[in-house]
Amino acid sequence: MIRIEAPSKPASQRLWHNARLASMAGGVAGIGIVRDGAVLVSGERIVFAGAHSELPPIDKDCEIVDCEGRWITPGLVDCHTHLVHAGNRAAEFEMRLRGATYQDIAVAGGGILSTLRATRAATLQQLIDAALPRLDALIGEGLGAIEIKSGYGLDLETERRMLQAARELGRLRRIHVHTTFLGAHALPPEMAGKADAYIDLVIGDMLPALAAEGLVDSVDGFCESIAFSPAQITRVFEAATALGLRVRLHADQLSNLHGARLAATHRALSADHLEFTDEAGAQALAEAGTVAVLLPGAYYFLREQTPPPVELLRRHGAAIALATDCNPGTSPLTSLLLAMNMAATQFRLTVEECLIGATRNAAQALGMERDIGTLESGKFADFAIWNIDDPAELVYRIGFNPLHSRIWRGR
Amino acid sequence: MIRIEAPSKPASQRLWHNARLASMAGGVAGIGIVRDGAVLVSGERIVFAGAHSELPPIDKDCEIVDCEGRWITPGLVDCHTHLVHAGNRAAEFEMRLRGATYQDIAVAGGGILSTLRATRAATLQQLIDAALPRLDALIGEGLGAIEIKSGYGLDLETERRMLQAARELGRLRRIHVHTTFLGAHALPPEMAGKADAYIDLVIGDMLPALAAEGLVDSVDGFCESIAFSPAQITRVFEAATALGLRVRLHADQLSNLHGARLAATHRALSADHLEFTDEAGAQALAEAGTVAVLLPGAYYFLREQTPPPVELLRRHGAAIALATDCNPGTSPLTSLLLAMNMAATQFRLTVEECLIGATRNAAQALGMERDIGTLESGKFADFAIWNIDDPAELVYRIGFNPLHSRIWRGR
Repeated sequence: MIRIEAPSKPASQRLWHNARLASMAGGVAGIGIVRDGAVLVSGERIVFAGAHSELPPIDKDCEIVDCEGRWITPGLVDCHTHLVHAGNRAAEFEMRLRGATYQDIAVAGGGILSTLRATRAATLQQLIDAALPRLDALIGEGLGAIEIKSGYGLDLETERRMLQAARELGRLRRIHVHTTFLGAHALPPEMAGKADAYIDLVIGDMLPALAAEGLVDSVDGFCESIAFSPAQITRVFEAATALGLRVRLHADQLSNLHGARLAATHRALSADHLEFTDEAGAQALAEAGTVAVLLPGAYYFLREQTPPPVELLRRHGAAIALATDCNPGTSPLTSLLLAMNMAATQFRLTVEECLIGATRNAAQALGMERDIGTLESGKFADFAIWNIDDPAELVYRIGFNPLHSRIWRGR
Repeated sequence: MIRIEAPSKPASQRLWHNARLASMAGGVAGIGIVRDGAVLVSGERIVFAGAHSELPPIDKDCEIVDCEGRWITPGLVDCHTHLVHAGNRAAEFEMRLRGATYQDIAVAGGGILSTLRATRAATLQQLIDAALPRLDALIGEGLGAIEIKSGYGLDLETERRMLQAARELGRLRRIHVHTTFLGAHALPPEMAGKADAYIDLVIGDMLPALAAEGLVDSVDGFCESIAFSPAQITRVFEAATALGLRVRLHADQLSNLHGARLAATHRALSADHLEFTDEAGAQALAEAGTVAVLLPGAYYFLREQTPPPVELLRRHGAAIALATDCNPGTSPLTSLLLAMNMAATQFRLTVEECLIGATRNAAQALGMERDIGTLESGKFADFAIWNIDDPAELVYRIGFNPLHSRIWRGR
């Protein structure tokens, strides 16, 4: 066991040594493996991560942790979740397995509207209480940062409450929470047939208010025939950009509406799903520096047959990330390790692509590439220490958590 | 929280009440739901499980546990695992994702032979140490019994060591271990081209010795063109039967060699995999009372396209179980909850079929249906208490463990 003792007064420095590092740093080969590695931390930041032989002099009161040869990676980053919601859709899942159609489920009150109703009816505290076990499951796998979307309220009050819950989760647990306003997720039932009028509300009413309250780190939309058109999403993106907010998009999941290109045009942080993205879309993402976020949990749960165009994304040099898409309807998944295995098994991502996709590139999808996602000097000291012999084990195993310990902001 | 206090002397009785039960009992509708339920235990056995209103009088020193409305199911049973082995195949997994062919991997020393070499080289203690984290992951999900196969030694000494390790795991942890001798798993390299002579060794040398040492609870074989023929398996089954041992079979996974029918003919406890089983095979299983064990982890990991004939199994009334198939090459899966989700998602098993398949029918696949697998009077008090609102959640969620506590043999 690593000795992590509480000092009588906080040490100015902490050193993790006798470790193997997978730094995930850009500009080095593969995942940045250092076999006799050390990480030196001062306060909340890494001041050195690399070969022990190159370790700078340390303070005489530096606290030292012997990793006994274990592997250290950056803290994992889940860059696409709908973690905050009320209720679940287990009953609907059960109905569908018994042969119920989508219409049967709609008639029985299921689908996204059931989550909408439950979330509107939930108090702030109930939203927090429901989300905490999911968040704890993710944190238990070494997560250091998470994106959490609104989008099950679709009215100002509930969207606000969802974002407040997300912010509060970041205070209750030692994790960074990035909040995303997803007012343009679906059309609420009271606005049926009035999609443009609803977008008026999103951009004229909800977004300015929530942004002014400091609840919005980025703005998302769902561009699909069953959701909003490219023209409607464009209005949302222009409003967000005018407020100085970065955008992201649920793009090309079920059909090709050229969502990837639309996201790239607006310098989106990420375009997510991408099953139906074509070569022009992949190229646009690469050129714009928009991260391609793949969501293998939804692909698995929905039994989709068209995988995202991984080879095109590679060829054009798009940054690929992956995430759980944790949500009650299409991806009730609370394991980023499992998302990595699913991305490898279903999409044929390599081990390196999965590991970088859940760290460095996921950090970029949050616009936080200068602060997290790699083990490099100057970044936050967020990392995970693993009981493994090879980083590939993090992707290969299914339903196994080899985390030894998690460090966040140096502790 | 439930109060589970250590009494100064063991109570003769313990009562869990204010619980919702899913008893999985046969002869009742569905999964045997009792909404205001209680389980009364005396020593290691259940003396009552049912509606609180029907609870018999309890001893005055009976220890009482308030379940606060939580759900209780029987302890889960994983009825097909290769849990004991050395090494892992993460490097091979990585190679394959990079485009390596099976031949590339064989040339690089991969495949089942790499597990064979590592297992032959491992000491008893090393086999135990390697298996314990996997076993603990499964126990952490409420498992009460597990089947563990040999089959990576393929010589007397190593097969013995694997089975000794399995037995020892059952002493180190509070769980029942059912051992299965799988000498007829693959042809060891030193016997290349001499399959019949190897079967001579299996039935003339290994099986009698290991059975005499009390290491064998049942006997398994792999019937496939890449393993052993029906005629060879028949010899193994006849030898096992002559020793009074029940058999089981890896059947029809990659092609239809009529393994299901072969297993049924020999009154096998189970026939496992079954992707290519035809209607005659499904009918034979049902008539023989041989459990159809589905292994969705291997189907997922190998990206198979032909699911087992669930509809035929249903139509003929075969008992369906499911298991992790935990093994390093084709199913590095250590979550029976996830196996349930995979069986539902991939094979369209219903929630009830998954739950019964991981409890009652899995117990039958171990020949233990009189002792475990349901919450019924007379059975061992093995059960799991869950933080869920609906048993369907155990199947619906992906990578989430809602176990509150596990009871084994009444403690």
